[in-house]
Amino acid sequence: MPSILVFDIFGTVVDWHGSIVREVAALYPQVDADAFALAWRAGYQPAMQRVRGGETGWTRLDELHRGILDEILPRFGLQHLDDAERAHLNRVWHRLAPWPDSVAGLTRLKQRFTICSLSNGNIGLLTNMAKRGGLPWDCVLSAEVFRAYKPDPRVYLGAAAVFDVPPAEVMLVAAHHDDLAAARACGLGTAYIERPLEFGAGHVKDVSPVPANQWHARDLVHLAEQLGC
Amino acid sequence: MPSILVFDIFGTVVDWHGSIVREVAALYPQVDADAFALAWRAGYQPAMQRVRGGETGWTRLDELHRGILDEILPRFGLQHLDDAERAHLNRVWHRLAPWPDSVAGLTRLKQRFTICSLSNGNIGLLTNMAKRGGLPWDCVLSAEVFRAYKPDPRVYLGAAAVFDVPPAEVMLVAAHHDDLAAARACGLGTAYIERPLEFGAGHVKDVSPVPANQWHARDLVHLAEQLGC
Repeated sequence: MPSILVFDIFGTVVDWHGSIVREVAALYPQVDADAFALAWRAGYQPAMQRVRGGETGWTRLDELHRGILDEILPRFGLQHLDDAERAHLNRVWHRLAPWPDSVAGLTRLKQRFTICSLSNGNIGLLTNMAKRGGLPWDCVLSAEVFRAYKPDPRVYLGAAAVFDVPPAEVMLVAAHHDDLAAARACGLGTAYIERPLEFGAGHVKDVSPVPANQWHARDLVHLAEQLGC
Repeated sequence: MPSILVFDIFGTVVDWHGSIVREVAALYPQVDADAFALAWRAGYQPAMQRVRGGETGWTRLDELHRGILDEILPRFGLQHLDDAERAHLNRVWHRLAPWPDSVAGLTRLKQRFTICSLSNGNIGLLTNMAKRGGLPWDCVLSAEVFRAYKPDPRVYLGAAAVFDVPPAEVMLVAAHHDDLAAARACGLGTAYIERPLEFGAGHVKDVSPVPANQWHARDLVHLAEQLGC
């Protein structure tokens, strides 16, 4: 059994799609908020890929999110937004709401394990999100600490190195099989969390078990139960 | 008024001298535990100076502490300690006890401010210490994040950059005037905490106010009172 649990955040612990849809629908009712949220998120991997591939130097996710936002606004008829409006909207990623089970599940897991974020989100984003949502991290770990984006091995191995433990002492908890596979390749344990509504009720995600994961849970409370917390 | 409070740890939030004295006295009753604690801490600045001056590359405080420990053990007749005993003793820095007011003061300050460690201790050390002692950080910030040791300006300015705020939005809380002066030079606010017994009852520290600090408090509960928490 590992002693340290590290958590993917976007989609695993917080509901990025629902949170963005709610804010965009309230601010700009003329916009297709579902499509807007999906378009923003669709720019995420390509933007990080430019950092991973060395095309640009280390850039925090806040800046990457802003670049994608500036790019998609015209497509939704929002090219008139000024800098302050764009900056406010961009900070929606700091305000993402936890899934209904997240705070209860993490609180139980924290009694037995050291619990840390391990997200591509930057430290300030993750800290503001945790404070607002009541996520009780023992430590906010971020790609920003390691200056590399998941699935770069430096992130997973960096988490183990921070605690001076072998990788097998650390388990990644995530709703994404590619993240879990990369962690497994580094020697970390893995736990999959079903989040069928990550992309919204209109785009239900396949959450079938993958045998390579040590644990498979409906949500974080279910994971806590399975781990005896 | 700042929105983010960052805290020095050793001496300010936890009692390194008392904690080391207690562990050393229990494990090795023949040793002068007070002198041992002071000797270990006396190696701290010179060891960091070798990193600051570029003599060695980035090295975490756990490693620096171990180097100092290996150096002082013969002086106290403990050169026979094996690697496991040395490793255990070195981790005493992860087990330092909070001052009696620290948890209550931080809990109050957390209601109004984002509270973070800002210590030369490494991330794992600070996380283990917080979990054991119940220190309720919103975020564990460390020299390890910035790969520079205080009073290097990169640490103070790095804390502001993490939150994407001007330095004046951040206030350093510390029991050491050199740390506070360096933060002030970077534009941070400063609050001094009296810790007259930092070096033990046999070596009472002068805790006279320095007018350059915006706040001067007996302890962290007193600071919370002054800041209206």
